[in-house]
Amino acid sequence: MRSFKELSAIFENHFNKRQFPDAPATLYDAAQYILSIGGKRVRPVCVLLANELFGELNNDALNVASAIELFHNFSLIHDDIMDKAPLRRGMETVHTKYNEPTAILAGDVMMVEAYGRISEVNAAFIPPILRLFNKTSKEVCEGQQLDMDFETKSTVTHDEYLQMITLKTSVLLAASLQMGAILGGASAQNQQHIYEFGKNLGIAFQVQDDYLDAYGDPEKFGKQVGGDIIANKKTFLMIHALSVATPEQKNELISLFEYNGSDKVQKVLDIFNACDVAVWAGELKEKYYKIAMQHLEDTAVVSSRKTALKELAQYLLQRDS
Amino acid sequence: MRSFKELSAIFENHFNKRQFPDAPATLYDAAQYILSIGGKRVRPVCVLLANELFGELNNDALNVASAIELFHNFSLIHDDIMDKAPLRRGMETVHTKYNEPTAILAGDVMMVEAYGRISEVNAAFIPPILRLFNKTSKEVCEGQQLDMDFETKSTVTHDEYLQMITLKTSVLLAASLQMGAILGGASAQNQQHIYEFGKNLGIAFQVQDDYLDAYGDPEKFGKQVGGDIIANKKTFLMIHALSVATPEQKNELISLFEYNGSDKVQKVLDIFNACDVAVWAGELKEKYYKIAMQHLEDTAVVSSRKTALKELAQYLLQRDS
Repeated sequence: MRSFKELSAIFENHFNKRQFPDAPATLYDAAQYILSIGGKRVRPVCVLLANELFGELNNDALNVASAIELFHNFSLIHDDIMDKAPLRRGMETVHTKYNEPTAILAGDVMMVEAYGRISEVNAAFIPPILRLFNKTSKEVCEGQQLDMDFETKSTVTHDEYLQMITLKTSVLLAASLQMGAILGGASAQNQQHIYEFGKNLGIAFQVQDDYLDAYGDPEKFGKQVGGDIIANKKTFLMIHALSVATPEQKNELISLFEYNGSDKVQKVLDIFNACDVAVWAGELKEKYYKIAMQHLEDTAVVSSRKTALKELAQYLLQRDS
Repeated sequence: MRSFKELSAIFENHFNKRQFPDAPATLYDAAQYILSIGGKRVRPVCVLLANELFGELNNDALNVASAIELFHNFSLIHDDIMDKAPLRRGMETVHTKYNEPTAILAGDVMMVEAYGRISEVNAAFIPPILRLFNKTSKEVCEGQQLDMDFETKSTVTHDEYLQMITLKTSVLLAASLQMGAILGGASAQNQQHIYEFGKNLGIAFQVQDDYLDAYGDPEKFGKQVGGDIIANKKTFLMIHALSVATPEQKNELISLFEYNGSDKVQKVLDIFNACDVAVWAGELKEKYYKIAMQHLEDTAVVSSRKTALKELAQYLLQRDS
């Protein structure tokens, strides 16, 4: 069992080259561009980690890992168009650097290329991998649609937000792990445990992301702190605050949606603090972390093989132990 | 061997129902909408026709036919966004009726759904079908990119246009036929002949489409006659006219690109006529029709089974015999 870092290096070595034909350059340069601006490649490395949890790392896992990373980047290109985002990871988004038609098409061809990698897998594994890939891809699209729908919805419940975030971000992490497990010959039950490990880890990560947006150290977080508050996003924190606030606090929160003063973030944080939102968020993250770890514990594999996945969970959730 | 019409009815019966889940309705209603505004379903019926050419019509063929029609409609939704087209078949395009983010996502989820249908095919057939589907999907994206690139290119050669149109429209017809042949157990050689039949038929159809845009009967054509001329499209006809025109005619054609008077179409047609473009286009269409029919002839199947495909060719190319 290699560490996350070692498997990252193996994946980078496999993936860090042009993934597309040369021509038409107008199309494929745009697709290659987003791959070149990096990212932590967490999802594809999860394929390799789960593959090694059950078996020997093989070439099929590298193909599926590439498919997952291509699919993830397809979704980033199209989401950035829909969200009209000018920047990603500090670099121009694809539709900003090129143009919108090219970005739509570069995303399309990247999704096709993802399926292309799946078609290269050992034939016996193609049907189960393809079915899980399709199910997950549909869920990711549904999650993005729900996220857009929430922008115009006056109230969003905790459960609705949880469902949206699960679809939009957690299921791809979960499916990456399950695909690695499938290729490693894992039983259906072990596949399910590793899927649930990933899904709950993803939810815990999102709770943390929502928390850091409000309370993070601007230098470490890498994004504008308070960005969700400024954009009136209905995050875990905001939804909770609205549900526990006094009528006065609730009215103030709602009126702050219309407010654009420079102290908007601080005014919202004052109410969050009065509602103990930070403590609540820490407990929610811990809840999903524990569910995730229980599923890893219940995976029927000798404990010593699970070290790398435990390290991954601690790394993603910024835990010291 | 059933006729095109009979197989159309079988496909419609299979496909003429909601193809997506109910929720989120904002996403799936938009996807279903474009399917509901019709189309001749030529490509999926080609899957069934080729399947029956070699074997018994089976459920796998219906799944692959559905995948092809879903993929085709995905490409229409996204092309309409890129082309800023307000109407399709006289109805609002998806991004006009809903909005652009929803149209992008509805296209995405339709492509995923197309792959979903492939995953339902008998496992033994999935790898070859998936590989051909991927190859073709990439080519369709490349064709659309070339088409967009041509808008800003000052000169486009006959061969460049032929390549673009082959990728953008012919390969999907060709692949539909080959997929039906694969499911019918056809030999590699027969698969290749039926693919080439479809590819050349598609090219002949495009030559006719370019011809009808300039010379068609407005009542029968169903589109604005002269639309390509008004949009300065570099069609087979325009490229040919530019290549055979006298220097004076060529200069006039080029200056007409900048002209927007109500007699623009007539002025261009006058030069087309002086260059005998209509006769040339008729010969070009005939050339590809003959290549297509030779491939059908060379397909090693008793001649009586080929009737429906011959009828299809005559129907698509508006031939009386």
